Order: sequence, then C-alpha cells, then structure tokens
Amino acid sequence: MALIVQKYGGSSVADAAGIKRVAARVLETRNAGNDVVVVVSAMGDTTDELLDLAAEITDKAPAREMDMLLSAGERMSMALLAMAIEAAGGKAVSFTGSQAGMITDALHGSARIVEVSPARVRRAVELGSVAIVAGFQGMSKDSKNITTMGRGGSDTTAVALAAALDADVCEIYTDVDGVFTADPRVVHHARMLDTLSSEEMLELAAHGSKILHLRCVEYARRFGIPIHVRSSFSHNEGTWIVPDASDKIELPEGEPLEQPIVAGVAHDLSEGKVTVIGVPDIPGKAAHIFEVIAQADTNVDMIVQNVSTAGSGKTDITFTVPKAQADRVVAALREAQSEVGFEDIEQDNKIGKVSLVGAAMRSNAGVSATFFRALHEAGINVDLISTSEIRISIVTHEDKLAKAVEAIHTAFGLDTDQEATVYGGTGR
Amino acid sequence: MALIVQKYGGSSVADAAGIKRVAARVLETRNAGNDVVVVVSAMGDTTDELLDLAAEITDKAPAREMDMLLSAGERMSMALLAMAIEAAGGKAVSFTGSQAGMITDALHGSARIVEVSPARVRRAVELGSVAIVAGFQGMSKDSKNITTMGRGGSDTTAVALAAALDADVCEIYTDVDGVFTADPRVVHHARMLDTLSSEEMLELAAHGSKILHLRCVEYARRFGIPIHVRSSFSHNEGTWIVPDASDKIELPEGEPLEQPIVAGVAHDLSEGKVTVIGVPDIPGKAAHIFEVIAQADTNVDMIVQNVSTAGSGKTDITFTVPKAQADRVVAALREAQSEVGFEDIEQDNKIGKVSLVGAAMRSNAGVSATFFRALHEAGINVDLISTSEIRISIVTHEDKLAKAVEAIHTAFGLDTDQEATVYGGTGR
Repeated sequence: MALIVQKYGGSSVADAAGIKRVAARVLETRNAGNDVVVVVSAMGDTTDELLDLAAEITDKAPAREMDMLLSAGERMSMALLAMAIEAAGGKAVSFTGSQAGMITDALHGSARIVEVSPARVRRAVELGSVAIVAGFQGMSKDSKNITTMGRGGSDTTAVALAAALDADVCEIYTDVDGVFTADPRVVHHARMLDTLSSEEMLELAAHGSKILHLRCVEYARRFGIPIHVRSSFSHNEGTWIVPDASDKIELPEGEPLEQPIVAGVAHDLSEGKVTVIGVPDIPGKAAHIFEVIAQADTNVDMIVQNVSTAGSGKTDITFTVPKAQADRVVAALREAQSEVGFEDIEQDNKIGKVSLVGAAMRSNAGVSATFFRALHEAGINVDLISTSEIRISIVTHEDKLAKAVEAIHTAFGLDTDQEATVYGGTGR
Repeated sequence: MALIVQKYGGSSVADAAGIKRVAARVLETRNAGNDVVVVVSAMGDTTDELLDLAAEITDKAPAREMDMLLSAGERMSMALLAMAIEAAGGKAVSFTGSQAGMITDALHGSARIVEVSPARVRRAVELGSVAIVAGFQGMSKDSKNITTMGRGGSDTTAVALAAALDADVCEIYTDVDGVFTADPRVVHHARMLDTLSSEEMLELAAHGSKILHLRCVEYARRFGIPIHVRSSFSHNEGTWIVPDASDKIELPEGEPLEQPIVAGVAHDLSEGKVTVIGVPDIPGKAAHIFEVIAQADTNVDMIVQNVSTAGSGKTDITFTVPKAQADRVVAALREAQSEVGFEDIEQDNKIGKVSLVGAAMRSNAGVSATFFRALHEAGINVDLISTSEIRISIVTHEDKLAKAVEAIHTAFGLDTDQEATVYGGTGR
C-alpha cells in the first residue's frame, strides 16, 4: 500500500462535472489500496473573478486582504470535492492551508513554506479518509495570517505535503499527458518524455517550460520526492521526474530507461534585452551597473559582456530581464548614466529565448556543434548565448523563435510521428 | 469615545458599489472618534450560488464540508470591505470566525457559540484599525472544524462580539429603517418604533417578525447589549432595543420615552395546524401524544386542548408546527394511533398567526377586550388562542391574516400617516 499525493489544477475542477470526474479518479486510486491525499486549486476562473472584484474596489489592495480574498477559492473547490467523494461512496475530509499545517513566512502573495505539520491530514488518512488540502495557501508563522504562495503554489503545496508525509509519489494532474520534448503548441511532433531528472526539469522550468513551476521542482529535488506529471483527462502513464539523474526508473515493462542525451527544448518569450553601450572598461563599472539593476528590484537572467573594441577602452554589457521590468531597469540606469559614465542604452523587447536541456550533455562533446549548426542551417541569427553544465540557451528575434525550437528539436532526433494532445488551459 | 460593533447584511454588500458605500459609512463612524468593529455577511447571492453548486454535486453533502464551503462567502466580503476601507484612507484588518475567536459547538449548520475570545480583534482596534469579522461562522471547540451558525448567524456574531468586547452598542444595519409596529409590506401605515425592550423584541421575533433572529435578541438580552437596528441606506436613527424594559432611553432631544402599551403586531404564515380528534380523556394520553411528536423532532408552537364533550370521555388536542414538519408529525401520530387510541387526525396548512406584543400589557387590563373586539368587528374567525404575559396570539385562516393584522394595528392606535420605506431583500 502506497501513500499517494495527487494535485488537481483549476481546469480539472472547473465545474460540477469536473469535480465529479476528479472524485472518481481519486476513488480509483483509493480503491486500488492506496492512501490518498489530494491537493486542489480553485475552480477554473474563480481566482480571476476574485481579482476582478478586488479591482473594482481598489488598485492598491493590501496584500494581506488580497490573500484572505483569494484563499476563499480553494475552500470552495476542496469542500465540493469532499462532497463529491462522499457522494460517490468514499470518505473525505477537507483542510484549509492552515488546518493542514502549511506554515509560511509573511510574504503575502508569494509566501514561502517554512514548516509543514500535517498532523490533521495524517490522522484523517489513518482513519481511512481521503484528505483534501487547499493548494496555494498557508498561514504565516508569527502573525498567523492567511498567506498565498503565488504562481505554482498548488504544485508546491503538493510536493511539500508529499515530503512531510513521506509519500511514495506526488502526482501532478494537468491538461497535457506529461512533459514534452518541446511545447506541443509550437512543435506539433514533440515527444512525451517517460522520465527526466529534477535537474533537467529545473532547467526546463527556469527557461520557459510552463508545465511545472521552478519552486515545486526545487522542493521535490531537495526532499527526494518523485513527481509523476500526468493528465486528468486520460489514464495514460505520464512523465516521471526523478530526484537524481542517476536513478533508473523501472518502466511498467521492466526495462530500465536509456538516458537520452537531451531531455527537451524550452522556449521563453517573456524577457526583453537591454544593452548598455560604451561602458568604460575599468574595474568596478560592471559591478556598479548591476548594483543599479539590483536596486531596481529586477530579475536579471542572461548577462553577456563583449570584449572591448581594440583601443577604445569601452565595452558593451547586455542582459535580459522580464519584459515587465525592462522599463523600470532602463529608467534606473539612465538616472545613473553620468555617474557610471556609459554612452547609451538600447532596449529590445522583441526577443525570444530557446534552451536545450539534457543531463547527459555534460559528457557528450558535439552537442554545441549540432546545436549551432542546426540554427545556422535554419537561418537563425544568434544574439546572445549562455550555458550551464546541462543547458545551452540562445536569444534571437521573437519572429524566429518557433523556427529555432523546431530546428533544434529535429536536429537532436526528438521528433515523433504522433501529434501531442493538448486539452485545455492551466490552473494555478 | 465609544466602541461600536456594526453588522452589515448581504444586501448591503451585494456588489462593489455597496461595499464602497459600507466602507464610507464605517469610516464616518470611525472618524467621529469611535472604535469600530464590523461584522459582515456574504455578498448578496453568494450563499445561494454556493448552495446551488453543492446541489449539482450531491443532495447529501456532509455538514462539515457544507460549512467549509459556505464559510468562503464571508471571506470574500470581509476582505473586499477591508480593501475598500483602506482605499478610502482608513486602516482595516479582516478576521475569519476562527481568527476572531468565535468558538462554537460542533453542530455544523446551526452551531451555537460557546466562547468568544476576540484577542486579535481587540489588538487590531487598539492599534487604530477597523476590525472586520466574518459573520455566521466559527470554529468548533474540540474538533477545530469550521462551523456555521444558521439563520440569523451574522446578527448573533455581532451581538456576541459586542458582549465580549464590552461594546457600547451593537448596530444592526438592514434594508429597513428600524423595527416597525407591523410588517410594512402588510400594514402600509406601520409606524417605526424608537425603542422597545428585548423582551418585546423576543416575542415579536418568536412570532413572525423577520427583522432580527431570536438567537441574537436572546444573546443581547442575556449580556445586556443595546441593539440599534437601522438602515444602511439612510442616516436616520433607527430602533433601539434595550435589554431591560424598565430602561428609559434618552432620545437625542433629551425627552424620556413614554412606555407604549403595545410594541407591535407580528404575523407568521410558516406554521400548519394539526388536530388529534377523539383522544381518550384519561391521564397520560396527552403526554403520550407529545412524546410521539417530540420523537419526530418537531418544534410545536401553540397547543390547545378543549374540554371533553360532556359524557363522551373524549377530547381534541390541536397544535401548530412549522409547515415543513407537519407531514412528518402526522405520519408519526398515525403510526401510534392504535396504541394511543385517538379517532382521527386533521391537518390544515392554510392558517396564519397574528400576535400582539407589548411589555405594558402586564399591567393593562382591557388589552384582550380591545384585541378580540377588533377581530370580531373585522369578521375574523379565531381558531386558536395562546397568550404569554406580554403577548396574545391567535390563529385564523391564511386569507384573513392581513386583515387581522391591520384591524389590530388600527385598534391599538399604531397607525401613522407616513408610508414606511422598504429598500430590498434581507441578508443572513
């Protein structure tokens, strides 16, 4: 008998029919002899509706009250799911974030988990019930206020509960069949992965893959929790994300998986590019620039500094930031222009980033060569390059992005014959 | 500086505009130098919408989960009200029932308050904030589950908080100007009362007045909390309900109020009448009948036993119960018919009850005479009569009820020249 934590997103519980379908799914797992803890998001558009209501009142809602408002969403879905499970003959008890012992810091809207004490959840499971826990929400440790965790919060709740309860697996139900070698909306012949490592999933998530949030993967990796990403609309096996790249997962047929060289191709259209031109090439200037950027409270991703043009004593520094932060950081830099002594700033939001990720890239020479040859042959101009041990990312014009993703996907033999199925939207 | 607890019902906070209006109202009170604690119901139709959602899932929802679901309603309205107060320049913090220390028993759906420990509410007020508390909900003492209090729950929350915080007054905002001498929808020239005693309000509430729930008035009376029932749609003084009938309230002009003989006329269409015919007139038979009724879990209101017809050795027993329970109690009696030995049962749901209430009736002879003369002159047939020290109730045919209410209202000089204003629906 295994203990399974299942997480269902907002699109899976969008209406009464969806909730009943999820209830049936939960009971299947329960009746197969497993203990089940379910984490659930707010129904479909509930969160957006609550945000609209708040916007009708004020555009400067206190973060504490916004969390109080939004946390109502999961109360509804979790109570309704408990009712549906009972109506289908099962036993179920729902718990709010605070009842489930999800203790967070006090950063309303993006709270981080500091402690998980799921005594009530554990007791409910021991008594034979399915425990249903509100995703996305917790209670702050000192002030005992309701908090929410921001994007990917429900996934993180599920993984954190799985870790605290020492669960065998955390199943993340979504509207696609699993993790694909590329976004199936861009690459129609993307292939679903049977397995990949947390490390690979981290790189994919950090560089544009939307299927799991970075935080949830980090958490699972740290606590060694296997994640099974699968569809709530089918019974297919999905993708297993294993904490350690050297783990071999036994497939149902009993064959150990071969470790593929690359796991997949991620893309990202959310960033813009800023170039600081004519920076005096003397010690401390780059540091000064990044201090200014840090003070503007921005998240810099890629950074490239060219060597200085011969004899000019000047260099250019280019970096990428989320588009929404680009104006702010440019304004901050302009203010510091005379002090830092650079010549000009260029800003370009029409860029896209494509990343190739694979744990085996470490030990495989020739990956870079294949990567850049594919881009060259597809006529893709490369603006910026950045790499990690298991990733290569480049920036190009946004119009070329889809072509770049497809070219790389094909070059590494990731294409399949089947079209991927995409079912709907995404939850929180 | 006074501490004022204000309660706003669902119709006052039905939409963003309503919430902003309430926020302005709260700030007026705050800016006049008072400490303010606000109890708020769920927005407009929220509760009905949540009940509909649950009904789509199951018709046998576990009571615990139903409470979890319904309690989401106040979370939304209270957070939005806090936002609106902050947007209008005030300081506000919202609290759920459990955060506000509303500890109840475990009777989901109709929980009763067992303890109020509003430490967080008190602290928020001391720090200069308006504290906003979710009405209608609490947390069960032992199992620490979310509970709801059923009809009139938000009013009861407000009075209980007022008592625990030693507030100067509990203001119940509603959609009429105050308590009237009769329902203004029936008697168009009903007069608003400046004041009445808790005892009178209890009798009115118990016999059909919908303006305040019995529980809330009982609570206020027990803890000596003055209630001020007033409209959230106007700034008029409303009706003061004072804990002790002998209290004299000083009107703004400084004149002590004269104690009127009668406070008002209540009516009630919610009950049905059951007559058990031919009950053997021997000791123990009536007791047996009422045991059967009690086991059917019904709330008997009026009971009348006629003297036995000369020589027959038989008597009839008539009682009234809520219409929804009438079939159940008749079935239970039929089952016990042979054992008890009565002849037949008659059931009549087409009845109405009218009650005259007034604390000064105790010391005023002639009230009954005026009452029954008025009914007689209006051609009203009286089926049943029951009285308390400060009340006379009769049952008649439902079609005659409005006429009976008007006749009594006029006979006791309660009519006024002005038409009462009725603004909208009622909250929970």
